Amino acid sequence: AVAAPAIAQSMPTLNWRLASSFPKSLDTIYGAAEVFANRVSAATGGKFQIRVFAGGEIVPAFSVMDAVKDATVEAGHTASYYFFGKDPTFAFDTAVPFGMNAREFNAWFMHGGGDKLLREFFGTYNIMNFPMGNTGAQMGGWFRKEIKSPADLKDLKVRVGGFAGKVLSKLGAVPQQIPGGDVYPSLEKGTIDAAEWIGPYDDEKLGFQKVAQYYYYPGWWEGGANLSLYINHDKWKALPDEYKAIVEAAAAEANVDMLAKYDAKNPDALKRLVANGAKLRPFPKSVMDACYKAALEVYAETSASNATFKNMYEAYSKFRDDQNLWHSVAEGNFDRYMQTRKR
Amino acid sequence: AVAAPAIAQSMPTLNWRLASSFPKSLDTIYGAAEVFANRVSAATGGKFQIRVFAGGEIVPAFSVMDAVKDATVEAGHTASYYFFGKDPTFAFDTAVPFGMNAREFNAWFMHGGGDKLLREFFGTYNIMNFPMGNTGAQMGGWFRKEIKSPADLKDLKVRVGGFAGKVLSKLGAVPQQIPGGDVYPSLEKGTIDAAEWIGPYDDEKLGFQKVAQYYYYPGWWEGGANLSLYINHDKWKALPDEYKAIVEAAAAEANVDMLAKYDAKNPDALKRLVANGAKLRPFPKSVMDACYKAALEVYAETSASNATFKNMYEAYSKFRDDQNLWHSVAEGNFDRYMQTRKR
Repeated sequence: AVAAPAIAQSMPTLNWRLASSFPKSLDTIYGAAEVFANRVSAATGGKFQIRVFAGGEIVPAFSVMDAVKDATVEAGHTASYYFFGKDPTFAFDTAVPFGMNAREFNAWFMHGGGDKLLREFFGTYNIMNFPMGNTGAQMGGWFRKEIKSPADLKDLKVRVGGFAGKVLSKLGAVPQQIPGGDVYPSLEKGTIDAAEWIGPYDDEKLGFQKVAQYYYYPGWWEGGANLSLYINHDKWKALPDEYKAIVEAAAAEANVDMLAKYDAKNPDALKRLVANGAKLRPFPKSVMDACYKAALEVYAETSASNATFKNMYEAYSKFRDDQNLWHSVAEGNFDRYMQTRKR
Repeated sequence: AVAAPAIAQSMPTLNWRLASSFPKSLDTIYGAAEVFANRVSAATGGKFQIRVFAGGEIVPAFSVMDAVKDATVEAGHTASYYFFGKDPTFAFDTAVPFGMNAREFNAWFMHGGGDKLLREFFGTYNIMNFPMGNTGAQMGGWFRKEIKSPADLKDLKVRVGGFAGKVLSKLGAVPQQIPGGDVYPSLEKGTIDAAEWIGPYDDEKLGFQKVAQYYYYPGWWEGGANLSLYINHDKWKALPDEYKAIVEAAAAEANVDMLAKYDAKNPDALKRLVANGAKLRPFPKSVMDACYKAALEVYAETSASNATFKNMYEAYSKFRDDQNLWHSVAEGNFDRYMQTRKR
């Protein structure tokens, strides 16, 4: 089949820099950018090289979005909800409280109009975006004491950022912004009472169960945290069509690959954590309901002052509600049966 | 960024034929092959063309695997469980009763060793395989009468194939193999009592609710039906590395895209079906439990006579059990809360 005559063709040699917000120790998240870059290189015979830098190497972790906007780097890989302070609308590209799970986010982005809405938004920052990795539903984090009712959240110092922090504040909690490396000593000293991180595979590396043994679920503020590839829009437009096609396919591949990697690695990590003292606890329904009610208040307040947010929230929540309706039927029923049957 | 000097390069012009087992009317499944082919063309500047043929156009729907093996066509897109009769091991690449859901299958294939096991198996047929589309958990199908206990399955003539048919036989049902186009008249005349198809979006096109109004869930025999891209192994090996990389990325993209499309389209179709008379019913737990027990018997019997099947089943079911353990925690709890909260 390779008998057809060879055709001479010219494609440019490109060397891009991609700034990740993540440390190499988060190998699953950081690794998604490398999966992507390796695929682009292989698909172009090494002519389109994308070098991945860990958070802080060439761009501070929380400056990645600006660096892409300003073309300091051609591309970035980050969680847009880090930029919640600039505009809360950024959060929809990662996760919002009681939002979509990983599969629903992909459906919204690829076939539910999410791509159009998000790209209009990122376009105002001169950025093009592609979903590129998802953690799945995260854990609710590590707590020094049990949470038995919404009252137990009052005055609780919780390491949690952005949108979730605003919701928890409504219930009297005191959100803390603490860099990853400082979380363990803060929990150990009791400077904070609780800390959310990601899920078993990443949490295990930090040994939280030694200083805060109650391991709560679910992380209702990230039922599926999407990380995106962000590309400076001028750099994107200048790419040949072939490279654009390769970038889009490689990002989609890295997207499904990252979730698959987390799913494959989390079960054993969870077993080890429990064996080493972690006490698994679901948030009581009263706590979930109080947080849900508080989230609706934050959505309403934010919508009242931000038309872009309001527009995105309405489309997002309508799609999410339809997904939950459908997934409560075949998918939810099947999953529930499989999860609860005797083993 | 496109200032680097152009490099002359030669890549072959290729024209491949891809035989799908599906009709164009199943636009979501059939469409996955077109999404893939279009992406490969775009990524290669049109030099690698893959023409997609619907089931029966150049290869009969149920001969696709042989056509790929024998290089009658370079590639195919089908559900390997159609070839259950050749060897039941084929079923693992699509779906098996009480098996993995879509997300779990991807995790197994990409990071759980499923790729190695499945490729060893398909290698014996001179075929290379890539996951390329998933339906998600399917519906249990359309029944003319309610199913209230396992006894109601006795003597029931059900249009259902392969593995599921063997399981249902153990409960006294009589599986029927009927081509898609004949299902509606067979149900109308009462020649059969029930028929499984796919899910709301596809089922709606055939109007089943007019002749069998009880719409059961879940389809426990396909908690996530994976369709794969199958490539003749000699043709695969002869591809330049760049084309191999592009094929793999494009197949992964089509994989996530197809599930996203089903998820986006199913909710509205479900609402219309119910508005038009479909009566949604979950299979009672007693029926699920009886089917589960019967499935275990079929697994044990098949394992006793087929070492390849036994080996694959043991790896598959161990991975599935670990996935269900982990997904019963953050993911299942989050999904359940979202699916049952008041709207």
